[in-house]
Amino acid sequence: MPELPLPKSIATVCLSGSLPDKLEAAASAGFQGVEIFEPDLLTHDGPPEGIRSMAADLGIAITLFQPFRDFEAVPEPQRRRNLDRAERKFDVMQALGTDLLLVCSNVQEAAIDDPARAAADLREMAERAAARGLRLGYEALAWGRHVNRWRQAWDIVKRADHPALGLILDSFHTLSLGDTLEGLAEEVPGDRILFVQLADAPRLSMDVLNWSRHFRNFPGQGELPVAEFTRAVLAAGYRGPLSLEVFNDGFRAAPARRIARDAHRSLIWLDSVLAAPSVPAAPLPPAPELGGVEFLEFAVDGPGGRDLSAFLSTLGFRKAGQHRSKAVELWRQGGVNLVLNAEPDSAAAGHFELHGPSVCATALRVDDAARAMSRAEALLCSTWRERVGEGERHIPAVRAPDGTLILLVEPGAAGRNIWESDFHLLPGDDRPGALEGVDHIAYALAEGQMDGFVLFHRAVFGLHPNPPMDLPDPQGLVRSRAMADPAGRVRMPLNVSESRQTATGRFVSAMAGAGVHHIAFSTPDAAGFLAGRGAPVLRIPDNYYEDLGARFGLADPVLEALERDHLLYDRDAAGGEFIHAYTVSFEDRFFFEIVERRGGYDGYGAANAGVRMAAQARARPWMPGGG
Amino acid sequence: MPELPLPKSIATVCLSGSLPDKLEAAASAGFQGVEIFEPDLLTHDGPPEGIRSMAADLGIAITLFQPFRDFEAVPEPQRRRNLDRAERKFDVMQALGTDLLLVCSNVQEAAIDDPARAAADLREMAERAAARGLRLGYEALAWGRHVNRWRQAWDIVKRADHPALGLILDSFHTLSLGDTLEGLAEEVPGDRILFVQLADAPRLSMDVLNWSRHFRNFPGQGELPVAEFTRAVLAAGYRGPLSLEVFNDGFRAAPARRIARDAHRSLIWLDSVLAAPSVPAAPLPPAPELGGVEFLEFAVDGPGGRDLSAFLSTLGFRKAGQHRSKAVELWRQGGVNLVLNAEPDSAAAGHFELHGPSVCATALRVDDAARAMSRAEALLCSTWRERVGEGERHIPAVRAPDGTLILLVEPGAAGRNIWESDFHLLPGDDRPGALEGVDHIAYALAEGQMDGFVLFHRAVFGLHPNPPMDLPDPQGLVRSRAMADPAGRVRMPLNVSESRQTATGRFVSAMAGAGVHHIAFSTPDAAGFLAGRGAPVLRIPDNYYEDLGARFGLADPVLEALERDHLLYDRDAAGGEFIHAYTVSFEDRFFFEIVERRGGYDGYGAANAGVRMAAQARARPWMPGGG
Repeated sequence: MPELPLPKSIATVCLSGSLPDKLEAAASAGFQGVEIFEPDLLTHDGPPEGIRSMAADLGIAITLFQPFRDFEAVPEPQRRRNLDRAERKFDVMQALGTDLLLVCSNVQEAAIDDPARAAADLREMAERAAARGLRLGYEALAWGRHVNRWRQAWDIVKRADHPALGLILDSFHTLSLGDTLEGLAEEVPGDRILFVQLADAPRLSMDVLNWSRHFRNFPGQGELPVAEFTRAVLAAGYRGPLSLEVFNDGFRAAPARRIARDAHRSLIWLDSVLAAPSVPAAPLPPAPELGGVEFLEFAVDGPGGRDLSAFLSTLGFRKAGQHRSKAVELWRQGGVNLVLNAEPDSAAAGHFELHGPSVCATALRVDDAARAMSRAEALLCSTWRERVGEGERHIPAVRAPDGTLILLVEPGAAGRNIWESDFHLLPGDDRPGALEGVDHIAYALAEGQMDGFVLFHRAVFGLHPNPPMDLPDPQGLVRSRAMADPAGRVRMPLNVSESRQTATGRFVSAMAGAGVHHIAFSTPDAAGFLAGRGAPVLRIPDNYYEDLGARFGLADPVLEALERDHLLYDRDAAGGEFIHAYTVSFEDRFFFEIVERRGGYDGYGAANAGVRMAAQARARPWMPGGG
Repeated sequence: MPELPLPKSIATVCLSGSLPDKLEAAASAGFQGVEIFEPDLLTHDGPPEGIRSMAADLGIAITLFQPFRDFEAVPEPQRRRNLDRAERKFDVMQALGTDLLLVCSNVQEAAIDDPARAAADLREMAERAAARGLRLGYEALAWGRHVNRWRQAWDIVKRADHPALGLILDSFHTLSLGDTLEGLAEEVPGDRILFVQLADAPRLSMDVLNWSRHFRNFPGQGELPVAEFTRAVLAAGYRGPLSLEVFNDGFRAAPARRIARDAHRSLIWLDSVLAAPSVPAAPLPPAPELGGVEFLEFAVDGPGGRDLSAFLSTLGFRKAGQHRSKAVELWRQGGVNLVLNAEPDSAAAGHFELHGPSVCATALRVDDAARAMSRAEALLCSTWRERVGEGERHIPAVRAPDGTLILLVEPGAAGRNIWESDFHLLPGDDRPGALEGVDHIAYALAEGQMDGFVLFHRAVFGLHPNPPMDLPDPQGLVRSRAMADPAGRVRMPLNVSESRQTATGRFVSAMAGAGVHHIAFSTPDAAGFLAGRGAPVLRIPDNYYEDLGARFGLADPVLEALERDHLLYDRDAAGGEFIHAYTVSFEDRFFFEIVERRGGYDGYGAANAGVRMAAQARARPWMPGGG
């Protein structure tokens, strides 16, 4: 079996900007090849030969020229015109220095439903291509007029029986129709598969043309079984490039370098997923096993983050430590550690300057920090080393797509733990009923960031994304997708809003970017935790509890207990329960949540999101000393 | 036949903000009633009685409470729980002071496919409602588990046979499935139709639930036959409210007052469309007959708009007049009049201050300006009267949704024409081959403005919208919808871009809002017009012409002639041709187009938009004296 991984390629249509911008972005992200999407060449002001030499200078191959549309099985005189058109495109290919043309199945009404005719036409085109040393790959478009399955395309290629004609497979065109590659290895010799294009997509119920043209994304960002697809083409013996062809409205509008890096990351991740007896594993270390959140770090601009420590006190947090060498405090309650970092000249100070008071780092407990760092680096992530004082522990860190750091902590490592090594710990007890840990960390993202975040956390940390859902803010919809590790120890709902007026949109505006919008703390008894504490809890209207009674048939005393503490309630189909309350926000920025899960409830109370968001739109931010 | 028009109502879900915000917006837009969408009440912090009195104070009725879901045809004990739930909602309705509840068809898997059982359940619910003086309207959801057509819902209502139970019809639920109301008048007595909800929508191929929840819009904004639907309910004898129920992501994120006014405008427009022998015409004057564009006015900040007049000179425009009393110049060529307004303290000066140099007014030739003004006022439009000097002509004006003015000029009116009355005209000839007139005016809109613009121009001026299409800018997709009057004398493509990096998005950023992005001038001979003129034409790459040859089989001399003048080419299925060129932009803002239409070509060269936008991304704005 030849060496794997296969060469990695990307179609220029995936990226924004001019054709030179696209080539440069693909090369700098580490791709070995690009497909030239014809409209990108047509709009380029310069000869194809210039693109050829530019690609050569960048060290990337032009793997394919695409697409050639509506060619086969048409009546004369269209047939002759199409062959003339092909000759002109062969000229362009020779100038570009690529030998492979993608011919996609005809979508025109005038196309004739006759595989023999299609085969004859393709054979003639292949004969002409061969005369110039070129090859053709025939691909079944999911919305082809008569040919939309790979098996039909293969049947036509077999009939045409020309050495310069082969098959091109595309994961979207196959998977979007619910088709699979079952039988491919038995029916198609590997060397007759000339090229493989990959795209993932969210599962959407819409016509496949629109779905394809606007909503494709990179493997790992969507919900299609792209890994199974790829495994099947490898099993058939295909050893050519794996090439991304993704039409996505958001990607077209985003910086090309960022999208190119996400694209390459998706293929590196895919390589690792493909590891199986039949396919040698790619050299990517396994994802870390996660043990929860060790601490969250806030960038602040004074001791105790000025008012932030007072805000934390209302929830029962207390100052539990002072850093040995830095203006950094540890605030703690039960299993929750919050670090308030006011150290000048630190990563936190840089974060504060850009974003104001906010979470600048999240520390995750991992089984092997060095291995996790290697994996992150192999996945093209930036890493960070903070300067440390003598005797202090160095914590390796990965930079997340929002610019915050994800610190990797091994709780079981030998030596003193991070708190003992770096902090003067202060004595003190936690009252009973205190918080157990961090239940989830919710991010607010700027538009166009969702797919990149999902891929990052899936690839680097092995978090699995839930299907997307919509949450109704009174000022617009918030699109939400939650991610979690298989054991549910690290949970991250990701939210994005088109409107800048929603709670999510306002936070992104205030932060000038994405960030941690709220942190949920887990407790075994939410009502007990809140009782008599006087925390600045978000006020939930009576009408909510009226409806809750009608929906769930809760007994009046239960309802009254919830209502007293402004607790929200949800119940899943299996009877699992979720009881939770929110604080008002700190400086109209982030806020906290108190969460009690019962009976295996695995969600985030999405049914209550509308009530919460409407209450937030009314509520004033917390004021020290105020209500 | 009772008096028409029918009362107008709107569901609170159409609007953004808190429930009090929504009521206030609906009342201020002139609605007579509101449907209370239950989640809006649940998230409201105050008792239902308060909403009742707020509505009373605002002078609007609460026409309906909705929705009550998943009620009918379920097994015990769910059936009993549902009846308990209904009793709780009856409490709420009585507190709200509304007597009508919308019960929509069950969508749950557990629902039983048994119309007799559904009827029995609804009968029991109706019996309980009647005991409190309440009524129920049963509506077939398009995605109801067993009941999704109005005829099925009517069959169940008939079987239930209870005076407190009737039918509710919704245009979206009927039309989205391709169903019609044929037979309604024969089968359903008018007084058994308790309520009618209206929504339009663009034609999208997606599952009907997503289509309904995100993409509905107001009548006249979409592509569904809402007028025919409404005509059928009127013919059946329905005389209750016409109520808008629109779920739209953009509307949820827009200011409630603007959307409420658009909503009311849509119903006023619908009234006028319904005028027919069977339905008395609503008192809306007919739309004007349009005779083209008389002039465009630019807000500028110095004589001749400083560099703008030099830019116009490159296209062959010359100064043709000076306003008698104001700092206003007329620039002219053939049938095109451009007014450069630098008058301090004018509407133009206010526009300049907000937006910089840009089109501040468009003058349309209308058959009857007074009638057109009455129509605009009846459609809730703002109007404007500019101060005029002695002997000058007053031009009535309507304010468009982008804040610019649309001036209404009667070319055939008695007395001196506008140019003679207001301007000192300068002598001078236009060279042959000059411009004939304004072919189209293209707007760039901010996100969320498309539906409002479409409704405004459709309702006030009778322009018809084409289906939307996507144009590929190198920095993202631009969504485009062209409008035109039936004779094609006034044409307005409307463009909107999610990305701020596209040409459209950059213009909207520079303008801090919507505006005229380009103006196309018509000529019978585009090549002749450009030949030797040295106009600052946008440079089109050679690769485009290579492909043009391949696509259309144009002869080489034809291609070469196009290429020489950077002319773009398109051909429609009937052989109509479009030959057009663009200028570079003025100050990275607006630009001009030269357009030649042959053989009835009716489009805008959308196939060339990608090439144009890529060229614009490369091109430098025009510089006086520069290339």
